[in-house]
Amino acid sequence: MMPNRPDASKSGGQSSLLLVDQALAAILQQLPKTTLVQKSLDQALGFTLAEDLIAALTLPPQAVSAMDGYAVRGVDVTRLPCQLTRIAESAAGHPWVGKIAAGQAVRVFTGAAIPDGADTIVIQEDVDPVAEKDGIIITVRSAEPTGRYIRPAGLDITAGQVILPAGTLLSARSIGLAIAAGLTAAKVRARPRVGVLSTGDELVRPGEIPGPGQIISSNASFLINFITACGGHAVDLGIARDKPGAMLEAVQQAGALDLVVTTGGASVGTHDHIVSDLGNSAENALNFWKIAMRPGKPLISGNVNNVPLIGLPGNPVSTAVCALVFLQPAIAHMVGGSADPVQFELPLAVDIEANDQRQDYIRAFIVTKDGLQTVTPAPRQDSSMMSVLANANALIIRSPFDPARAAGERVMVMPLPPLH
Amino acid sequence: MMPNRPDASKSGGQSSLLLVDQALAAILQQLPKTTLVQKSLDQALGFTLAEDLIAALTLPPQAVSAMDGYAVRGVDVTRLPCQLTRIAESAAGHPWVGKIAAGQAVRVFTGAAIPDGADTIVIQEDVDPVAEKDGIIITVRSAEPTGRYIRPAGLDITAGQVILPAGTLLSARSIGLAIAAGLTAAKVRARPRVGVLSTGDELVRPGEIPGPGQIISSNASFLINFITACGGHAVDLGIARDKPGAMLEAVQQAGALDLVVTTGGASVGTHDHIVSDLGNSAENALNFWKIAMRPGKPLISGNVNNVPLIGLPGNPVSTAVCALVFLQPAIAHMVGGSADPVQFELPLAVDIEANDQRQDYIRAFIVTKDGLQTVTPAPRQDSSMMSVLANANALIIRSPFDPARAAGERVMVMPLPPLH
Repeated sequence: MMPNRPDASKSGGQSSLLLVDQALAAILQQLPKTTLVQKSLDQALGFTLAEDLIAALTLPPQAVSAMDGYAVRGVDVTRLPCQLTRIAESAAGHPWVGKIAAGQAVRVFTGAAIPDGADTIVIQEDVDPVAEKDGIIITVRSAEPTGRYIRPAGLDITAGQVILPAGTLLSARSIGLAIAAGLTAAKVRARPRVGVLSTGDELVRPGEIPGPGQIISSNASFLINFITACGGHAVDLGIARDKPGAMLEAVQQAGALDLVVTTGGASVGTHDHIVSDLGNSAENALNFWKIAMRPGKPLISGNVNNVPLIGLPGNPVSTAVCALVFLQPAIAHMVGGSADPVQFELPLAVDIEANDQRQDYIRAFIVTKDGLQTVTPAPRQDSSMMSVLANANALIIRSPFDPARAAGERVMVMPLPPLH
Repeated sequence: MMPNRPDASKSGGQSSLLLVDQALAAILQQLPKTTLVQKSLDQALGFTLAEDLIAALTLPPQAVSAMDGYAVRGVDVTRLPCQLTRIAESAAGHPWVGKIAAGQAVRVFTGAAIPDGADTIVIQEDVDPVAEKDGIIITVRSAEPTGRYIRPAGLDITAGQVILPAGTLLSARSIGLAIAAGLTAAKVRARPRVGVLSTGDELVRPGEIPGPGQIISSNASFLINFITACGGHAVDLGIARDKPGAMLEAVQQAGALDLVVTTGGASVGTHDHIVSDLGNSAENALNFWKIAMRPGKPLISGNVNNVPLIGLPGNPVSTAVCALVFLQPAIAHMVGGSADPVQFELPLAVDIEANDQRQDYIRAFIVTKDGLQTVTPAPRQDSSMMSVLANANALIIRSPFDPARAAGERVMVMPLPPLH
């Protein structure tokens, strides 16, 4: 069984906690889309389409051969073996423009235009040619059914057709498709500018030597790279100290932002001021701060100077899990897309105890042995342990009140994205 | 059942075909590592560690509280309720440096140093304080077991310890860990410079209008973005025409390269010259060119001017699948890492026929309905159909001679990476 969780909460019934899905929906609902920009396709990897992409060309532009062989008339190869006259050659980029007549064959290669009059392919393995030369007689031993190995015009795409809908994340393969369809640019959403603010009197900057009671600010480095991996543009807002108004001041000094993400200062201890900062003015708002999840219960959704704000907890693992659960979908939503993390079921390698009222994100390892995959929770789940998260390759996701599970039972697993 | 595959091969028994794993091992084995470079951690996302990363600091540096509450002596709270004197406060960044004596309590917040003498946490929900002020008497109703909610020094990492081994791909969360451990830079492998060469008389450049029999060169655009998504540095070598020596000339004119990737010209048709180019000189070598996979049977592994070369087939889907299967691991291998694509089993939504001697990579869709995931092959599997691949979200991977499978049986699935 798993050990006790040192950071498990004793507080609250479910009535005081918001479910993860409800919290996510509430966060997304308040986020505006970023502006439209025209991007050259060779600079568009990782951007999200703001409009449907329409093919300019038909592909293939005409019927082409899917094999190396000979284009013939089906009626000429009903009785086999038979002899045909090779009259010409059609290669990719070098189409033959005549029309094939009775008893004739045209040598074709993969991707080559099928000549007018031909409707059947004989693959080269089924032909005895005497030479690679026009005018010769070839012997056909076997022929394909009419139409087979012929790619008709428009098999892949047709000019005027939507090839990629708005909201598509542009991958290498979707950019390849768009280029093939005759396009060179696309309307996409600008990368959201996301301000990252750490809070805490205990923090010193990377490169400084921490004094007694101090630690290096690492959540900001995590978040800046996480936002980059999500396709956002991260803006470092530095460290706000634990005093009223510090967060507001840091945000006010930043340039234009689409979203502010804070880390730390999100519980209701005496030294936490973000909640009170947001409760204090007209342009600022506080939506909620307790979510039924572990790690990461305290979470703020609000507005600061009319910019949406997500306040993540300060424990590094809580920050990282909340970033996966809330920040990644938030950034995708702002560019009109969606983050659909890969999730699937795997058998547990060990027993696990019943879950409480909070959705649990358990740091874990997918292990493949003798071709079989299982998932094992990391032995310690303390939300301060960055080393466990950095070396884990998956999270086990458990719903509130999920019963105890025995080794071998399947649980839902989310592999940790390689760059996040 | 699935429709006939228009590009299924009729040729060859298994004896003439190399298995995918054998081909991959042979490709990786010939690839050298790139050079070591020192990178600032704030520029290191997506790079791979060339050396083990060693922590400079211990975390936490001293025992800290995991909760908001009070630090007390366990011996003082064996009989409850009891009364203690709050003598001081210890907050994150503001440690109290005295020693706690009998009958005393120190107010603590999450992340705060535990004072000398204290070994037990009383969480704030279990205390009746009369005020948030030192010198007052507090009433303790319940106490945690000694040590609980106390994070001992070094719980996460210890100075001198390997926190991330050589070969680790630097993610946001591993960079966060390294920063927290007191590091600001790391030795990583340089991005491999990968030349991309298209071949074919039928190709015109993006932005040009294709004439009769011509198509736009899109595989190069795909490969350049794919290599970027893999963390490589892509170098566009343009289009080589279908004539002997064209490929050699294009590579000789490029600058220093770690790898050359070609697309097209990899079968043995009359118009394919890459194989013959590589067979013709001392610095050049041809290793093999027939692999038991679909799509993508023809594949070249060789050397050109002593630079390793991978020759991918020209059909766009074959190019893309071979890039996933061979090029992504090749780039990871050159930086000392490994590409471990996520793979898992899902139930089929439909029946599929028995597989032949080739490992099959079937374009497919993972669909979630009523909380249940299934995978459905795309209805057409022609290797020219970019639109199918661009809109698919997964590949079903079938071993050679995998028997027919009925709907509901589990098959191995690889989700398509979002940017590849």
